[in-house]
Amino acid sequence: MRAVCVLGTGLIGGSLMRAAARAGREVWGTAASEATAVAAVADGFDVTTDTDAALARAAEADALVVVAVPLTALEPLLQRIDAVAPTCRLTDAVSVKVAVADAVAQFAPRTRYVGGHPMAGTAQSGWAAGDPDLFDEAAWVVAADDGLDLDVWRDVAELAWDCRANVVPAAVDEHDAAVARISHLPHLMAAVLASVGAGEQGDDLALALSAGSFADGTRVAGTRPELTLAMCEGNRAALLTAVDEALGRFGVMRGALASTGGLAATVNAGHEARMRWASTREPLHVPVDLGADDVFAELRELGRRGDVVEAWKH
Amino acid sequence: MRAVCVLGTGLIGGSLMRAAARAGREVWGTAASEATAVAAVADGFDVTTDTDAALARAAEADALVVVAVPLTALEPLLQRIDAVAPTCRLTDAVSVKVAVADAVAQFAPRTRYVGGHPMAGTAQSGWAAGDPDLFDEAAWVVAADDGLDLDVWRDVAELAWDCRANVVPAAVDEHDAAVARISHLPHLMAAVLASVGAGEQGDDLALALSAGSFADGTRVAGTRPELTLAMCEGNRAALLTAVDEALGRFGVMRGALASTGGLAATVNAGHEARMRWASTREPLHVPVDLGADDVFAELRELGRRGDVVEAWKH
Repeated sequence: MRAVCVLGTGLIGGSLMRAAARAGREVWGTAASEATAVAAVADGFDVTTDTDAALARAAEADALVVVAVPLTALEPLLQRIDAVAPTCRLTDAVSVKVAVADAVAQFAPRTRYVGGHPMAGTAQSGWAAGDPDLFDEAAWVVAADDGLDLDVWRDVAELAWDCRANVVPAAVDEHDAAVARISHLPHLMAAVLASVGAGEQGDDLALALSAGSFADGTRVAGTRPELTLAMCEGNRAALLTAVDEALGRFGVMRGALASTGGLAATVNAGHEARMRWASTREPLHVPVDLGADDVFAELRELGRRGDVVEAWKH
Repeated sequence: MRAVCVLGTGLIGGSLMRAAARAGREVWGTAASEATAVAAVADGFDVTTDTDAALARAAEADALVVVAVPLTALEPLLQRIDAVAPTCRLTDAVSVKVAVADAVAQFAPRTRYVGGHPMAGTAQSGWAAGDPDLFDEAAWVVAADDGLDLDVWRDVAELAWDCRANVVPAAVDEHDAAVARISHLPHLMAAVLASVGAGEQGDDLALALSAGSFADGTRVAGTRPELTLAMCEGNRAALLTAVDEALGRFGVMRGALASTGGLAATVNAGHEARMRWASTREPLHVPVDLGADDVFAELRELGRRGDVVEAWKH
């Protein structure tokens, strides 16, 4: 089993170290602060603040390097990778994929990079919140664009399986468009709804009358703003497309309400879409032959159908 | 205790009959279909399809008449009230208040009408779904516009308390503006979000990747469309104001995303609003002297603070 070097020991990185160690892998990593490194070492993990040393060991062991830091912290880290482990096997756990791929191409262009996005999280953060079960049955998106390194693709998929996640292959731009629609846009709409619903300070009638529809519709507006901002601002282009589609639908609905007063088109379409979501089937685990021609096209098609890659013995 | 005549035996009317009977009141009512009347009689309730007979009895007993039919079924019922019990004590349980007040002024102008809105519900409907506990601790809005009949106001408040609800006084237009913001707008935003999120049929990647933010943000799009439409379309003017505020905020956010890429203003305002909602205190039960001058102004102010009227002995 390939060794894993995890850069970053927040909720995702810390959970990943625990899950990979549980699966029997050799794991080490880096923390941004001495206090976190001490806490991780106390928990029995090999964590240091010396990024260069961790990367040198990764180059030596031909380990899979996993970047698990926020998008905004990426650039200096990629520069260290380029300096110390320039051709390493590289993946990441950042929630947007085009921006990371662009940064890798710019700052660590010789790495063998295959992007990843384990879609798991809790309201908690930091090393202490880490949980080896965090990824159980979660979708772990693995980039599937033409020309990627198949050997590293295999490494990333096997790491995901060791973390008990499902491997969902997707082109990086399709990933970003999808998460814009089903994660980032919901956060922005929740923010707008919360602001309109709460109204003016001192007029608490509306809040006093609020019930389930408002509570549910605004729940993610309770997320720490810096997390929402990092996620949404890092996916600007795809998010703009999703926002414009929502604005278009909202505007049409506004026009209907003002003219005929009829809302059936909006409400029926929304109901149909929600029913389609509710009837989403369990993903099929589809066997894939990585030696086939056009394997990435096949993988992307599999992901678009809502299916996942069947784990092979490793 | 004043007798109660309930017109309509759906979820709200049926629950109201059960709760009022449990409180020891004399209760009778009308059903739209023979089958429902038979079911209610089998459950021990005095329910008929003969609306005129029920209203004649209400006139004779000086009962409180409660309209618990959909807004769209209001007009013919008010015409029967005007014909048979033209000066009765009248309230209702419809989810919008200006439209009902307008209809009463037009079709049953001699009634002593004080609007009401018990804010309770489940996904179920019909007589069989009725539950005497439905209103426990729920907000029961009672119209508090100047010039209403104080004696009937007292009747409506006492009925609400007998149903174990909290009495929230509000001007009818303030009620409609509030529910537009915290109930009707959330339904429309959920519909738009569901449509954008689900995307094109056949591209299931986004739905496969959806998690809590999309599930919560679209939950009420699963409501039966006819219920959402009846609610939203009946509150057209107030809803248009809420929709325009949401569109304005959405447009500003879109501009920021496209120009600087910064979403902090939107996300921070939404977070602050959600935190304000989350910290909403329990309502104070405030004693009110119905004999005071300007009592309706006092009641409206109390409702705007998020408080409720303290029940008196009755």
